[in-house]
Amino acid sequence: MISKNKTNFIKSLQNKKVRDDEKLYVIEGDKIVNEFLMAKVNIKTLIALPEFINSLSAEMMKYIGEIESAGYDELKKVSTLKTPRNAIAVVPIPDYNINPDDLFNRLTVALDYVQDPGNLGTIIRAAAWFGIKDIICSNDTVDVYNPKVIQATMGAILNVSVHYTDLKDFLKKASEPAIPVYGTHIEGKSVYSHSLGKKGIILLGNESKGISEKLLPYITERLMIPRFTTALHGIDSLNVSMAASVIFSEFARRGKSL
Amino acid sequence: MISKNKTNFIKSLQNKKVRDDEKLYVIEGDKIVNEFLMAKVNIKTLIALPEFINSLSAEMMKYIGEIESAGYDELKKVSTLKTPRNAIAVVPIPDYNINPDDLFNRLTVALDYVQDPGNLGTIIRAAAWFGIKDIICSNDTVDVYNPKVIQATMGAILNVSVHYTDLKDFLKKASEPAIPVYGTHIEGKSVYSHSLGKKGIILLGNESKGISEKLLPYITERLMIPRFTTALHGIDSLNVSMAASVIFSEFARRGKSL
Repeated sequence: MISKNKTNFIKSLQNKKVRDDEKLYVIEGDKIVNEFLMAKVNIKTLIALPEFINSLSAEMMKYIGEIESAGYDELKKVSTLKTPRNAIAVVPIPDYNINPDDLFNRLTVALDYVQDPGNLGTIIRAAAWFGIKDIICSNDTVDVYNPKVIQATMGAILNVSVHYTDLKDFLKKASEPAIPVYGTHIEGKSVYSHSLGKKGIILLGNESKGISEKLLPYITERLMIPRFTTALHGIDSLNVSMAASVIFSEFARRGKSL
Repeated sequence: MISKNKTNFIKSLQNKKVRDDEKLYVIEGDKIVNEFLMAKVNIKTLIALPEFINSLSAEMMKYIGEIESAGYDELKKVSTLKTPRNAIAVVPIPDYNINPDDLFNRLTVALDYVQDPGNLGTIIRAAAWFGIKDIICSNDTVDVYNPKVIQATMGAILNVSVHYTDLKDFLKKASEPAIPVYGTHIEGKSVYSHSLGKKGIILLGNESKGISEKLLPYITERLMIPRFTTALHGIDSLNVSMAASVIFSEFARRGKSL
């Protein structure tokens, strides 16, 4: 039986302010909880059906602080989903040490005010696939520990560290050692033919507004994904997460190992 | 004042069975309604705020059967969205004449049991961008006229005709003139290096199950998107709409004009 206090506490983690204060967030679903344990991530509290708990190996158990066996109805009370999964876990928010020199020595993604949780989750999943290790978000980008973002990453969050910072300061820092900043722009050069390096920052902007005015001066290479049709009604761009997939794919293909 | 009957009728179009019987569907939002009118698509009924109606040109008016001026509260009653938009329109479902020979003379996309409305919408948007004109869906793929799909296409539906059919029959027909069928497969050849033609069918599968067993024999070229990292927790594939974007991009880049 999960106490009312604990139920309320877990539910309160749906709120970003509480997550920031407590440095905790929630993951949900057998598959993702298993992935976290296999990646040896410490879990503070696991709440799950007895069958799920019984399925865990002794090795996995080592990474769990506290285990609560629960029924379906109890899981439903703490879940953010319409149909709750078999397991919910409370996980500490990692405290990454961000060293700009490391970030500048490889490809890093910067996101300016991406608002949609599904888009951020998808971008993290694509970044993981194409070997990108870091995403630097503007402070107004949707919170990566929002349950909808975590759900959309499908566990890919384990491969990518996501940081929040003042993007203008970050890009300014990158400009000193003259790190290339690739930004999407309607009048940019084709991503298929423009030269792409193995180091640099790939800057992507907001869903409807694109990259904000104040960041434009820091872009050193303007890129665009050519449109392969003449008559096109109704769309003037690809969605930011599709554009991200295509651009990451192109950097990966051309750079082979990133 | 919109009659109760009309309100109920428009709401009933959220149901696929009713859409199929009436051969009508609903689009919502100023931008998409404008795009449809600029593309000279006939609209049966437009329900909108007076400001929106006043903003329409005489040319656009020609394509509207019936106009109902409505207040925000009335729009809310017929909307599928939490926050209704300024305009809602009822549009006839187009009756495409599908000629397999045309489809076989260019690149065509086939979707096997894609379930998520957002994924179908995104795939349509990517297809439009990369110049693909037709998508053939298995009968169990989510309905393209589902309001969530239409919303996710952002108007790109105007550029792509979406058909529903028995995919096995369709692929069988394609196999007679030996049209290449490119299917994603975990053990496929890299999409970056395998030869890609200007004609053929790009077959994509279900979000969790991939391409169904019964269709596998019709794949003539197995393709995969290489993963550019070794240690990867939590994800064993890209999401189907990201994979679609990357594959369409690669066909477009290599084929130049599709």
